[in-house]
Amino acid sequence: MSKKKQFVEEITSMDQDFAKWYTDVVKKADLVDYGPVRGSMIIRPYGYAIWENIRDVLDKKIKDTGHENVYMPLFIPESLLQKEKDHIEGFAPEVAWVTHGGSEELAERLCVRPTSEVLFCEHYKDIIHSYRDLPKLYNQWSNVVRWEKTTRPFLRSLEFLWQEGHTCHATKTEAEEETYKMLEVYASVCEDYLAIPVLKGKKTEKEKFAGADFTLTIESMMHDGKALQSGTSHYLGTGFAEAFGIQYTDQDGELKHVHQTSWGFTTRLIGAIIMVHGDDRGLVVPPKVAPTQVMIVPIAQHKEGVLDKAYELKEQLSNQFRVGIDASDKMPGWKFNEYEMKGIPLRIEIGPKDIEKNQAVLVRRDTGEKVFVDLNDLESEITSTLEDIQQELFQKALNNRETKTSVAINMGEFEDALTRDGGGFVKAMWCGKLECEEKIKEETGATSRCIPFEEDKLADNCVSCNEQAKHLVYWGKAY
Amino acid sequence: MSKKKQFVEEITSMDQDFAKWYTDVVKKADLVDYGPVRGSMIIRPYGYAIWENIRDVLDKKIKDTGHENVYMPLFIPESLLQKEKDHIEGFAPEVAWVTHGGSEELAERLCVRPTSEVLFCEHYKDIIHSYRDLPKLYNQWSNVVRWEKTTRPFLRSLEFLWQEGHTCHATKTEAEEETYKMLEVYASVCEDYLAIPVLKGKKTEKEKFAGADFTLTIESMMHDGKALQSGTSHYLGTGFAEAFGIQYTDQDGELKHVHQTSWGFTTRLIGAIIMVHGDDRGLVVPPKVAPTQVMIVPIAQHKEGVLDKAYELKEQLSNQFRVGIDASDKMPGWKFNEYEMKGIPLRIEIGPKDIEKNQAVLVRRDTGEKVFVDLNDLESEITSTLEDIQQELFQKALNNRETKTSVAINMGEFEDALTRDGGGFVKAMWCGKLECEEKIKEETGATSRCIPFEEDKLADNCVSCNEQAKHLVYWGKAY
Ligand SMILES: [Zn+2]
Ligand SMILES: [Zn+2]
Repeated sequence: MSKKKQFVEEITSMDQDFAKWYTDVVKKADLVDYGPVRGSMIIRPYGYAIWENIRDVLDKKIKDTGHENVYMPLFIPESLLQKEKDHIEGFAPEVAWVTHGGSEELAERLCVRPTSEVLFCEHYKDIIHSYRDLPKLYNQWSNVVRWEKTTRPFLRSLEFLWQEGHTCHATKTEAEEETYKMLEVYASVCEDYLAIPVLKGKKTEKEKFAGADFTLTIESMMHDGKALQSGTSHYLGTGFAEAFGIQYTDQDGELKHVHQTSWGFTTRLIGAIIMVHGDDRGLVVPPKVAPTQVMIVPIAQHKEGVLDKAYELKEQLSNQFRVGIDASDKMPGWKFNEYEMKGIPLRIEIGPKDIEKNQAVLVRRDTGEKVFVDLNDLESEITSTLEDIQQELFQKALNNRETKTSVAINMGEFEDALTRDGGGFVKAMWCGKLECEEKIKEETGATSRCIPFEEDKLADNCVSCNEQAKHLVYWGKAY
Repeated sequence: MSKKKQFVEEITSMDQDFAKWYTDVVKKADLVDYGPVRGSMIIRPYGYAIWENIRDVLDKKIKDTGHENVYMPLFIPESLLQKEKDHIEGFAPEVAWVTHGGSEELAERLCVRPTSEVLFCEHYKDIIHSYRDLPKLYNQWSNVVRWEKTTRPFLRSLEFLWQEGHTCHATKTEAEEETYKMLEVYASVCEDYLAIPVLKGKKTEKEKFAGADFTLTIESMMHDGKALQSGTSHYLGTGFAEAFGIQYTDQDGELKHVHQTSWGFTTRLIGAIIMVHGDDRGLVVPPKVAPTQVMIVPIAQHKEGVLDKAYELKEQLSNQFRVGIDASDKMPGWKFNEYEMKGIPLRIEIGPKDIEKNQAVLVRRDTGEKVFVDLNDLESEITSTLEDIQQELFQKALNNRETKTSVAINMGEFEDALTRDGGGFVKAMWCGKLECEEKIKEETGATSRCIPFEEDKLADNCVSCNEQAKHLVYWGKAY
């Protein structure tokens, strides 16, 4: 049986059924398993190790930009959730309710946090009094629950892990700057670590966060041409501050409401890694966040000296890289498949002949390319190859996005674009009216992804109603 | 007003009302605030930073001993929780129940995890098949909920943060070894990092974990003589494996049940730090887990060169220590109080006269001792002083425990011991019968803390019934 054939049997091919390919990969690469409650997920060691790496990178950036971590409670009294009207309308349909504690029925229902704006607001109200108390730059790492009807591991699940930043500022300008700054932090994590290129822009009124003045977003494109909202940063204005009474005495002695922001980044980004970089052999993890960057597979390991040499290499390389070794009695072929499925960026094969020649075989996961490397050059070769992989994954993803981005001047072109290559982004002008946005969604299935920070003018008129256009919008079908 | 007096006004004195002193400290040192739901807590930046330091130390030890982190779902279906009888009996009275998702009533109630044994078991059942799959050494960092009637920040709250380890082994011996090994890890975190001496021992049948074969514990003593259970490690035997059907095929081809352990360490240890090391000036944080180890307070900072020098020092010291600086326009006296309240181990004062003499003033939080240090010797002086503080905090805590530990041969001595110094540990012999244990609790309020690993024989007979004694037990009133 050909090697290619084996893989086809192991997981569904991407082109054949992308959704099935995705669930095959998350299971076969040991990223998640399903929990006992419908739509809940178990994040397995390999998936969690990727999350830890993402979290560590982002946590450092959040702290470097002056934020402090806190921890708010899991439960929100119903009355508190209802204080900000738009917010409760947005979230009420998808929250889980606790009604009993032990054997007693509670006097008031508690919602399991879907997000923690109201908890932060209630706390800020107590601790902010003067302009000297501002800004307050808090962040939280936690689990949140959203009672979704249709679920998919990482992308949309009953419960997920995330960080949520919540900040208070004296002025609108400062809060807006924060909103943009944190979007840049998210963009940098995506592009520089996850090798995922992102579009930065503003959400339309329809798509913005429930309770926000405006929402900024980074949107990435999956291999199948669908969009994934990959991080959002909201300027909340003074709406929550007014509802919760978060006021401070300014230097001029006046009592003013604070200006707030919130921003979040979640485990769904693991889904993005899978769908942006994966292929028919399985997962491909960008080197910078790979739990194991290099996997050593000894060849003919029963022969004298092979295992010793393999462990010696592991020891030596561990100073610089995250290195694994598989010295189990499984066949090398099985091991190759396994670590390709898991997307480990580099494999080192070393056998008796290699040892004789003082060399090893270095195999790239992304291209399959094999090179013989002199053991004296191994570290530098691994360093440059990992950098190469990181760079090329980004470039490949960018190419995919560019190939699958079209311009549409009218609805005919719009629909054509969405059919070609099964989707992608469509750039088209928009009048700014909700009804056009809704009509486009109804007719094409595409939603507005964002109004990009860098707008070009493709035409004078709205792609749908033909009236005066206000904005360039990226449209697309989304996860 | 004398400095002493100011403090007395700010927080209650320990001797006057220890419980009130405790809540004063957690609030005034900005560790926690109360959440909107009764008994829930907000862990504020300073409290959370201490937790992050503890977590990082423990996480490294958990990984170094071969464990992997995973994440299990928050919700447990009622039927799943009921699979192991002792377990559900132990936890049912204190769980929160989710009954509605969005606007729909659920077909089955979901419990918010009070601990995750049953979730791990259900997963282990799916992923363990052969002896090759063993051991499975998993750990999880998460929040858990216990519907407690009486709550106190960190010590007993509706929700807390912890890690819970869950492991499966082929043999009883191996699982028992794991149980002891992880208790040692906890003991090392307490003693070597938190400067809290611990007693290691086994819980009685009455006090063991619901569903365990036996429970190991580390017990520490607070300043007021009360005990705090500071970490537990359970050998679960095959009870859960039988209830959940976790079986593997052994090398001999036979189907066998796995032997399991679980072990947990929580945010209550922050409460232990407060109650073991704190004093009438507030919190005292051991240097190894202190978010800020050294706080620089410029003196006469409006004078030329002072702030420059202070910032220069901060820059220089930050390579080696966690350093803060307070250059706000508050009075030095206010700053001294504030950072003493927060328990920052060392304060550096530097003013114009010090700069002239190329020196700084170093003030210890634990003893109040002040020394002038030549700036050229500053790093080495800080290093040795921090080590000293860490060591002396441990020694002071150990002295407190030893002073407040008594031996009792009969119930008269037992009750005397508990009255003296308001409590402490009482070492007394026990026959092993539940009724004696219950009688002692009823008569004295003390519970059995543990049967120490190192038992000495104080007498032949049980302190309560006077029958043949089986074990030495440490008794005490506990948090
Ligand atoms: Zn229009
Ligand atoms: Zn007895």
